[in-house]
Amino acid sequence: MATESLATGQRSLGDPVLSYPLWPPLTSGCPRTSTAEVAYPLEIDYAYDRVPKELFTALGPETVRAVPPGRGGLDRWAPLLPPLAAPGLGEGGTPLIDIGDGVYVKDESRNPTWSHKDRLNRCTVSAAVGVGAEGIVVASSGNHGASAAAFAARAGLRCVLLASAGMPAAVDTFLHAYGAEVLPVPVEDRWPLMRRIVERTGYHPVSNLTVTHTGHPFGPEGYKTIAYEIFTELGTPAAVFMPTAYGELLFGVWKGFEELHRLGLAEHTPRIYACEPDAGGPLHAALRQGLPAARVEVGESAAYSAVSGVSGYRAAVAVRAGGGEALLVSDAQMAAAQAELARQGLWSELSSAAALAGLRATGRDAFEGPVVCVSTSSGFKDVGVGAHPAETLDPSWENIQGRLRGAGIPV
Amino acid sequence: MATESLATGQRSLGDPVLSYPLWPPLTSGCPRTSTAEVAYPLEIDYAYDRVPKELFTALGPETVRAVPPGRGGLDRWAPLLPPLAAPGLGEGGTPLIDIGDGVYVKDESRNPTWSHKDRLNRCTVSAAVGVGAEGIVVASSGNHGASAAAFAARAGLRCVLLASAGMPAAVDTFLHAYGAEVLPVPVEDRWPLMRRIVERTGYHPVSNLTVTHTGHPFGPEGYKTIAYEIFTELGTPAAVFMPTAYGELLFGVWKGFEELHRLGLAEHTPRIYACEPDAGGPLHAALRQGLPAARVEVGESAAYSAVSGVSGYRAAVAVRAGGGEALLVSDAQMAAAQAELARQGLWSELSSAAALAGLRATGRDAFEGPVVCVSTSSGFKDVGVGAHPAETLDPSWENIQGRLRGAGIPV
Repeated sequence: MATESLATGQRSLGDPVLSYPLWPPLTSGCPRTSTAEVAYPLEIDYAYDRVPKELFTALGPETVRAVPPGRGGLDRWAPLLPPLAAPGLGEGGTPLIDIGDGVYVKDESRNPTWSHKDRLNRCTVSAAVGVGAEGIVVASSGNHGASAAAFAARAGLRCVLLASAGMPAAVDTFLHAYGAEVLPVPVEDRWPLMRRIVERTGYHPVSNLTVTHTGHPFGPEGYKTIAYEIFTELGTPAAVFMPTAYGELLFGVWKGFEELHRLGLAEHTPRIYACEPDAGGPLHAALRQGLPAARVEVGESAAYSAVSGVSGYRAAVAVRAGGGEALLVSDAQMAAAQAELARQGLWSELSSAAALAGLRATGRDAFEGPVVCVSTSSGFKDVGVGAHPAETLDPSWENIQGRLRGAGIPV
Repeated sequence: MATESLATGQRSLGDPVLSYPLWPPLTSGCPRTSTAEVAYPLEIDYAYDRVPKELFTALGPETVRAVPPGRGGLDRWAPLLPPLAAPGLGEGGTPLIDIGDGVYVKDESRNPTWSHKDRLNRCTVSAAVGVGAEGIVVASSGNHGASAAAFAARAGLRCVLLASAGMPAAVDTFLHAYGAEVLPVPVEDRWPLMRRIVERTGYHPVSNLTVTHTGHPFGPEGYKTIAYEIFTELGTPAAVFMPTAYGELLFGVWKGFEELHRLGLAEHTPRIYACEPDAGGPLHAALRQGLPAARVEVGESAAYSAVSGVSGYRAAVAVRAGGGEALLVSDAQMAAAQAELARQGLWSELSSAAALAGLRATGRDAFEGPVVCVSTSSGFKDVGVGAHPAETLDPSWENIQGRLRGAGIPV
């Protein structure tokens, strides 16, 4: 397999005519199109005419279904990713679980830190290694921060993690697990502190620094591999539903399918559905108003990983180009979808169930052909996990029998 | 790929001359050799002369290293497993992570319920489906129970779960996630209640019912796939270290390598090291005393998933035949190994780090060739996870700067 990146530079989403060299990564968005109100992200260009033919064909669907054990991480797709300078952790290669009626769940909880963020952080920490930084800085309420900390540890870099005060206690343990310097601060202090720490230390920022979301230009490229994996197993699905906060996942998956089309491997691209908790919904607002990105007031929700007050232009591009929609889902709809996944043996984070909630609200009949819902993370990251010690039951047979009969078990 | 099981029957480990039909699974151990003091487990026989040649060769190491995305679960190895009647969840196919110096970690936290137990429960729940049971009963302090509940839910079976009072609160949430009837009872009540519920409901037992451990005869067969996966990626390692409670994992991995040798694919088998928390250590005691299995007093340990007061004959067979040892490791040694894994980006459960603790106590130099440590589960299952809500820091620059400088970060 080719292991060299074919990345050639950075291109502005604000004006696709504008391109920049690959290094250094423009972590504050496109410098020429961004304004005080809206920041425009960058994406990565590749020498598509040099993509090795065997990249997608060496392992045909038949071979893949035969289920080869072992996974080498994103390296398998190195030509279409930024240079993977940081060592991997076997990220990606997650299973597609058939839950019936042509609906498949891409279970991203099988990643190294049990969320999709590992695909992004293999790329962002590789950028930090690429620029010779001695550490990284990340602002996160959970999955992104722990994942960044894990890849930083693996690469021998320090990690400063600006956590959100009020995150679940189990997530606090998680964030501390990889040796990062964890600083739980009020949400509004995270970004000013992040900028200041980046300036003073020279550590590489791996989360957003801008007024509307741009994030790290290398990060969403990692999510393209979800599209490559789905395509290799299923071909092109009719639609892909994804939980959406800033839309990095959304954009990456859309771009992956768009590349497959561009390379002549796929005849069409799937429709792209962004599923936002209705406690926020900035992408829904932006699309309705025809804006590149929007800000909204944020209400109460237990889906803390996906509730956002600000969107990014990347997300709007993906939904518009992908011919889909931005859907708002309630906590109750996500809870119902989470329960449906549990009945299939999958315990997802509440926010991760936003994708299936969006599909159920839309209706399976709206699509011909397979539909994929991306479940981004594990139920262990939810609010309330570990909050209540287990009670001990009276073990007398009368009590146990009564409880089982109450549950409809004939005992 | 062949998808039919070549299983032919059950064979007694108590006296290998004794064999039984494949159905029904003998869930109370070998009826002819077991006594009031020691119970002997059964293993599964296969028509080895009918194993398809391409089972191990269709995907050579080169192909596997190229990292095919997607995983189809244990089905890939169906000929050498009991009939897989229950639907899968993409279990297995976990990555081998290179941590340097020829040491590899098999990261079993990438399974559907984030532990190795999913390989066992695909097989045990398949047995329940095979006998036409309407539900399963399981006694467990954590990983085994949640995994059984997930596969039962997936197969549409009810699950009664006798949990240990005193398990971590996050694990309590986990056990409830898949819709099982969870009954946390004092440890000494678990087995009498389990037997009674099995008798009254006809539900299939998927954990141990006997005086020394025998467990379900189909279960450990699922662990053979760890050996197959390691072999396909690395060839035969010099040694495999594993956390050990009852020894089902130990036996399954040993048997997998032994089969590879028997099939003429591997020239030798690896040395097999059982790593028991020193708060228990029944296998260590059994081997020292030349007994098939032993009972010991159990002390305090945070490695609750691997501390056991009783061993099973299966474990003794694996260590003796595998030319290895049973090692005792302390909580401090496991904590040091857990920290070493975290520095590599892997957050393991404390008990899961027993394998690397055992290797570090033995010394890398004792082996020529690669060594594999099996890390069985995720750090999310540990004692104390979620017990303490995160504090919020004073976000003033003086405070943040002081904390970072205190951590050696030049800010």
